[in-house]
Amino acid sequence: MLSKSRISLLKSLQSKKDRMEHGLFLVEGYKSVVEFIDSSYQVEAVYHTASFDPKMLKLSRNINLCEISVTNMEKISSLKTPQEIIALINIPSWPDLVNAKLQKKFTIVLDGIQDPGNMGTIIRTADWFGIGQIICSTDTVDVYNPKVVQASMGSLSRVNVYYANLAEILSTLRLPVFGAMLNGENIYKTDFGQEGVIVMGNEGSGMRPEIAALITKTVTIPRTGKAESLNVAIATALFCSEISRNSNNKVAGQ
Amino acid sequence: MLSKSRISLLKSLQSKKDRMEHGLFLVEGYKSVVEFIDSSYQVEAVYHTASFDPKMLKLSRNINLCEISVTNMEKISSLKTPQEIIALINIPSWPDLVNAKLQKKFTIVLDGIQDPGNMGTIIRTADWFGIGQIICSTDTVDVYNPKVVQASMGSLSRVNVYYANLAEILSTLRLPVFGAMLNGENIYKTDFGQEGVIVMGNEGSGMRPEIAALITKTVTIPRTGKAESLNVAIATALFCSEISRNSNNKVAGQ
Repeated sequence: MLSKSRISLLKSLQSKKDRMEHGLFLVEGYKSVVEFIDSSYQVEAVYHTASFDPKMLKLSRNINLCEISVTNMEKISSLKTPQEIIALINIPSWPDLVNAKLQKKFTIVLDGIQDPGNMGTIIRTADWFGIGQIICSTDTVDVYNPKVVQASMGSLSRVNVYYANLAEILSTLRLPVFGAMLNGENIYKTDFGQEGVIVMGNEGSGMRPEIAALITKTVTIPRTGKAESLNVAIATALFCSEISRNSNNKVAGQ
Repeated sequence: MLSKSRISLLKSLQSKKDRMEHGLFLVEGYKSVVEFIDSSYQVEAVYHTASFDPKMLKLSRNINLCEISVTNMEKISSLKTPQEIIALINIPSWPDLVNAKLQKKFTIVLDGIQDPGNMGTIIRTADWFGIGQIICSTDTVDVYNPKVVQASMGSLSRVNVYYANLAEILSTLRLPVFGAMLNGENIYKTDFGQEGVIVMGNEGSGMRPEIAALITKTVTIPRTGKAESLNVAIATALFCSEISRNSNNKVAGQ
């Protein structure tokens, strides 16, 4: 059973303001919920309909399980076709990025990405290629937006996403800063080295000039056709893939 | 001025049934409209608000221009924030694919892609990499769906999209058929040769078994992280990129 006030709280989490106020967000669907349960995120509660068998969750930690009606699931879900299970999760308080150690070799930096589908897909792609952190400008879409969470397909449980003043961060990192630009080095011939930062700009307007000025190596994805540009999640994936291919080849001694 | 019946027709084109019945679809936004005007598509009419200067279109062919109110633009647009210009375009009657010559070296084949954003992004990516045709199973999302058109960013004007019985087509093409599978050859070491077909499956369930059975070369995108899978548009882009890199290297004589 869900009280009216609880339903109202859960519904409110579709807005960023309410997510920030309550420090909570929702994750929908069995696979994603399981990945968050298995992560370091703190799961407040899991709501499921009668058709879902909670034993499937194989819980090894104490989590508040609550069976709810299909009608209530429809009320709290952000999906047109709600799934059987939804988790209420605490938004973590990330350590201050300037003091946080970047744990992995490569970092993705996003300057003003607006589309939640792109953002979620970038998180999922980073996770596939083992890139453990993403740093976003403060005007980038909120990572706990339901559409971002959905598109990340559980990968948000493993990739750390920070919001920060990019110009400040990029100037202090002392790492090679790669950015996609016209007239840069051919991406297929670029040596990405062992560590670095990949900067991607806004869908419509690209990188801000003050961010573009901090790029230390401009890279171009050669175009053989006629599209004016690539989708930003696609461009990010091509960078991740080339970094992966580079290190793959080096491991193989080529 | 737009009559009520015209508004009603234009609004109806958000549904596939009505697009099919009238043989018409809509393209929104200046850049995309210009690309369709410059293509072989037959443009029925261009509607714009008073804030748009039709001289910007630099029309070299006779096209029916019509200024409409912002209110009417909001009525016919599928976007939350409508743009200043929208074109009404004829759905072409493609030649029967079995008889149509495939003009370019590589073809993308989509088995049951459902998400319009993915479909549009695949079209845009194909266009970037010079892949001129996509063949879809008949249950793939309709390419004239407003969200597909939007995500393709004008590239639909250059990439031919066919719907066909995939099993029949793949058996008659006599080309290498590449497909992303577990335990295939490492994509970074795959020789894609000079021509072939890249098959991508449905977002949730992948390729149908009868289509998977027609793959002649299974290819794997090596995973260094933990995501269970890649988004289908991302996976398609990685194939396109590797094909491009292969021919790039060959041109350079490496």
